[in-house]
Amino acid sequence: MKKLLLDCDPGIDDALALALAAGSPEIDLVGITTVGGNVSLDLTTANALSLREFYRLGDVPVTPGSAGALLGAGVRADSIHGATGLGGVTLPAPTRGVADGHAVDYIIETLRSAPGEITLVAVGPLSNIALAVRREPRIVEWARDFVIMGGSYTRGNHTPAAEFNIKADPAAASIVFDAGWEVTMVGLDVTLTAVVTESILDQMRSLGRLADLVVPISQFYGVVKADGGPAIHDAVAVAHVIDPTLLTLVPAVVNVETAGTYTAGMTVTDFKVDGRVPNAAVAVDLDVDRFWKLMLESYERLAARIA
Amino acid sequence: MKKLLLDCDPGIDDALALALAAGSPEIDLVGITTVGGNVSLDLTTANALSLREFYRLGDVPVTPGSAGALLGAGVRADSIHGATGLGGVTLPAPTRGVADGHAVDYIIETLRSAPGEITLVAVGPLSNIALAVRREPRIVEWARDFVIMGGSYTRGNHTPAAEFNIKADPAAASIVFDAGWEVTMVGLDVTLTAVVTESILDQMRSLGRLADLVVPISQFYGVVKADGGPAIHDAVAVAHVIDPTLLTLVPAVVNVETAGTYTAGMTVTDFKVDGRVPNAAVAVDLDVDRFWKLMLESYERLAARIA
Amino acid sequence: MKKLLLDCDPGIDDALALALAAGSPEIDLVGITTVGGNVSLDLTTANALSLREFYRLGDVPVTPGSAGALLGAGVRADSIHGATGLGGVTLPAPTRGVADGHAVDYIIETLRSAPGEITLVAVGPLSNIALAVRREPRIVEWARDFVIMGGSYTRGNHTPAAEFNIKADPAAASIVFDAGWEVTMVGLDVTLTAVVTESILDQMRSLGRLADLVVPISQFYGVVKADGGPAIHDAVAVAHVIDPTLLTLVPAVVNVETAGTYTAGMTVTDFKVDGRVPNAAVAVDLDVDRFWKLMLESYERLAARIA
Amino acid sequence: MKKLLLDCDPGIDDALALALAAGSPEIDLVGITTVGGNVSLDLTTANALSLREFYRLGDVPVTPGSAGALLGAGVRADSIHGATGLGGVTLPAPTRGVADGHAVDYIIETLRSAPGEITLVAVGPLSNIALAVRREPRIVEWARDFVIMGGSYTRGNHTPAAEFNIKADPAAASIVFDAGWEVTMVGLDVTLTAVVTESILDQMRSLGRLADLVVPISQFYGVVKADGGPAIHDAVAVAHVIDPTLLTLVPAVVNVETAGTYTAGMTVTDFKVDGRVPNAAVAVDLDVDRFWKLMLESYERLAARIA
Repeated sequence: MKKLLLDCDPGIDDALALALAAGSPEIDLVGITTVGGNVSLDLTTANALSLREFYRLGDVPVTPGSAGALLGAGVRADSIHGATGLGGVTLPAPTRGVADGHAVDYIIETLRSAPGEITLVAVGPLSNIALAVRREPRIVEWARDFVIMGGSYTRGNHTPAAEFNIKADPAAASIVFDAGWEVTMVGLDVTLTAVVTESILDQMRSLGRLADLVVPISQFYGVVKADGGPAIHDAVAVAHVIDPTLLTLVPAVVNVETAGTYTAGMTVTDFKVDGRVPNAAVAVDLDVDRFWKLMLESYERLAARIA
Repeated sequence: MKKLLLDCDPGIDDALALALAAGSPEIDLVGITTVGGNVSLDLTTANALSLREFYRLGDVPVTPGSAGALLGAGVRADSIHGATGLGGVTLPAPTRGVADGHAVDYIIETLRSAPGEITLVAVGPLSNIALAVRREPRIVEWARDFVIMGGSYTRGNHTPAAEFNIKADPAAASIVFDAGWEVTMVGLDVTLTAVVTESILDQMRSLGRLADLVVPISQFYGVVKADGGPAIHDAVAVAHVIDPTLLTLVPAVVNVETAGTYTAGMTVTDFKVDGRVPNAAVAVDLDVDRFWKLMLESYERLAARIA
Repeated sequence: MKKLLLDCDPGIDDALALALAAGSPEIDLVGITTVGGNVSLDLTTANALSLREFYRLGDVPVTPGSAGALLGAGVRADSIHGATGLGGVTLPAPTRGVADGHAVDYIIETLRSAPGEITLVAVGPLSNIALAVRREPRIVEWARDFVIMGGSYTRGNHTPAAEFNIKADPAAASIVFDAGWEVTMVGLDVTLTAVVTESILDQMRSLGRLADLVVPISQFYGVVKADGGPAIHDAVAVAHVIDPTLLTLVPAVVNVETAGTYTAGMTVTDFKVDGRVPNAAVAVDLDVDRFWKLMLESYERLAARIA
Repeated sequence: MKKLLLDCDPGIDDALALALAAGSPEIDLVGITTVGGNVSLDLTTANALSLREFYRLGDVPVTPGSAGALLGAGVRADSIHGATGLGGVTLPAPTRGVADGHAVDYIIETLRSAPGEITLVAVGPLSNIALAVRREPRIVEWARDFVIMGGSYTRGNHTPAAEFNIKADPAAASIVFDAGWEVTMVGLDVTLTAVVTESILDQMRSLGRLADLVVPISQFYGVVKADGGPAIHDAVAVAHVIDPTLLTLVPAVVNVETAGTYTAGMTVTDFKVDGRVPNAAVAVDLDVDRFWKLMLESYERLAARIA
């Protein structure tokens, strides 16, 4: 069992990633923190609470964090995730609320309490992680591993140069990449290959109550399609924690552009490390078939639990 | 009595400002937080501890905070403040240590505990304040007032465009000025008029044990002289809390430049507010004679206490 | 007699500066080039043509140049100079047109033809000068001297950080300041002290036909007042050519900010040269009384000529 | 016959591109202009003169232009092109010199003399073209077509974000892309597919005297290899003029980043035109086989001529 702390902004692809974590026998989900991103912090937090109960995650704490970017106005992706952040789907209202305190403190205290044991996965803007790093720089040593869904070494999606999660808080991303750990960067370069094909969708349809969520949100999300179907970015980062052999990682020096007129939020990725210490392990290839096998097995397990 | 929470980086002029707070019958100093700036966080914290005992400040907590800038490398002013941060002066080693916890949390909790009562004064880089604002945006409502020594609406000192405290953490300053409160900006425009003349120095010489500190550090500091003697920037901000009639304040819209090649850290000050909500009350004039009268009266009171 | 080539964008203060050149016995005006700036190139050129005849400048060639900034959109100052660029005044339509060719070529060829003899004075955006420098770098050696009205080492006028002429084409200004010559920078710091007081205005009223132009445009221009009246920036640069003792110049390293969010077009002026080669001689003081004496004497001479 | 004006910085790949133009029966080369880039202007000009004679181009004028970037320091690629710019090859010293005048004037006058007839191809930094555009904006109408080798919509080569020719003068590129014409951008995305394979090299070996040049420089150049061999960027732009069916072009809005810390010189390419007027036709695919067929046929024709 791998302990996982998930910082997220649900968000359709966050919901699909959380389902993977919830259904995997390899994952011990220790906590969920939320951040404003795809939709507002209020909505990402409400969605996290609803998903916790829908996925029967028990008393895994949900702790809200930053509402917006460290610097500047931030961005939203309402048009992609729908007004509620979960496409057209309405989950039952949650019966329990958030944990006391703030995500930044929760992240620091949780990592402090078990040095070297917990993998931190961030699939939204990096505002919480950046504040935690600046508030307590030692978390970079305490985290077992740090994995993000975000960035790209080729092209962006929110702008031609920048991926959404990084563009949503470039200063935070810059802090996080420069913090002294090796960031596992699961960017668009690989996540755009993990698309929900018609065949995958068919298999999802047999997931009972879970299908009522994952099928329509995948289709809603489908308005932004990669080649062959909608891409479900965040789950690839969680999948990497479960099975590190799915992704091919290459060490690189990643600098986050914070100053460009057209390029703010770009993860400028230099694979010519040339004696520098790489600050990132960048995903360059995904075994798509095995990824979907892992996804569907976990989804089936979760479907059985919540039936 | 005005409750004051002082965020500082002692530093010579911080020591002189703290002496003013310590000696004023108007000030109830509730806490001291430290930040890396003039010298390293370790030194600013050690100096704060030494000064607390030298000034007989009792159990006012000293809580250390951020070691450096939010983004980028930060800057130091060792050449101005000496290797230890207090010129050539060595104070007795402190007998008691720092409070538990981190300055950011302390600032948040202290302001939360007494909404509308405590004036927050920051005389170093704004790293702690920025992190506190992002961690808990409501502090801008809880603070009774927020006063900084920093910035300039004409020329800088660390660069031709930027004053040291802002240049040391431009991103933090940008966050702080955009946080929704009115920042009272006590910048170089007025602090450079508060110089230690020979006549002032003579009066300081009769302060007994206190003279052993304030006279040599004023002279050491004198290597950076304004017209007529060394300027003692930080104390002007504290003096404003004691007597708000000393400074003439003008509302303005202040934007902190974070992107310029030659201008990062500049407080770009627009007095043509033109219907915008001003985010700053900018000091444009100081009653220098009354300022020094206040300083020397407070110093005499403190000198008597620590004799 | 000093040979002068004037690059300008008339513009009210350009018209007042040209009158100084026209009336001075010290000045041999060899040519006028125009640039888009205060108003469009079409208007600045039309105004230059009208002024040439109104001032009876004979066959001094007027050669039009750049319509706008090297990079980006540029700015205009129509609100200050009126729709025609000369306040409410309408001069007689010119009877002769522009010279063949382009200002950039004209500047290069004119300076090439008399190395070391001609002083180049630019009182508008530096677009033409920058293109000339890049097209023929040797003009920096051929010019006897290079004087601009532009910039500031304290505050701007078009923005809090930037003076209009520099802000109108920051990239051009950057090229010009880095070209290898010493730029005599006559900035707002001194030009704002050269204001048209009521007393000056009274003396202008006795200038006959010339008064019909210079009085109303000074008053129109008066909408932007420095302390005590309207400032007439450009003429100070021409006055310096006539009498170099009017201005106090200090060597400095000037960098033009091209990248800032709030500071583009700022002339960041470092008087601490510290062993670097200064690229500018920056005006820090103007003998205002002697400046106006020179102005009025020249205006009287011109008034007599055009009576 | 298509009239072609080539602005270049030979440079190995420039030499290979010029050979294509020289050997093609479709091309009427009207002029060559040079710019500092791969190596210094002196060397690019000397190489252009040598190549003109080696390729027996008769009296096609060679006119030198800008030595460096409009703004800032520029970059060189000596390590790729060798100290002389042509790998290890030494051509016979040229017997005739450059044309009178400057490339910028030559470009303007040449396009003005035959509006709509001449295709302008730029395969080096865009300094000359930018100065020409600013000096005479109508050249964008006079040029029949404007094709560059430069930029990328994915990754750069000189930096992770920027291709060499654009990075060498980002301000110039920005001016050129914003000038109002449609730039045909032949970027790394396609030029990296045009590699000199062993099979191509074998066919080059039978080119007699021409082989003595093109074989060793292709191999020298080989130190920077794309997959499968050295890429010969510039010739693809010339090939497009000869046969427009070789490249697949997609309209796009291209913005050149001039302000980024890590991204200056990037051609940020937005294929979502969304009602804007596209300023570029961006090459996204090259028919590599037909490209090499065209190259080798032209090379054989040239080889016969210079035998």
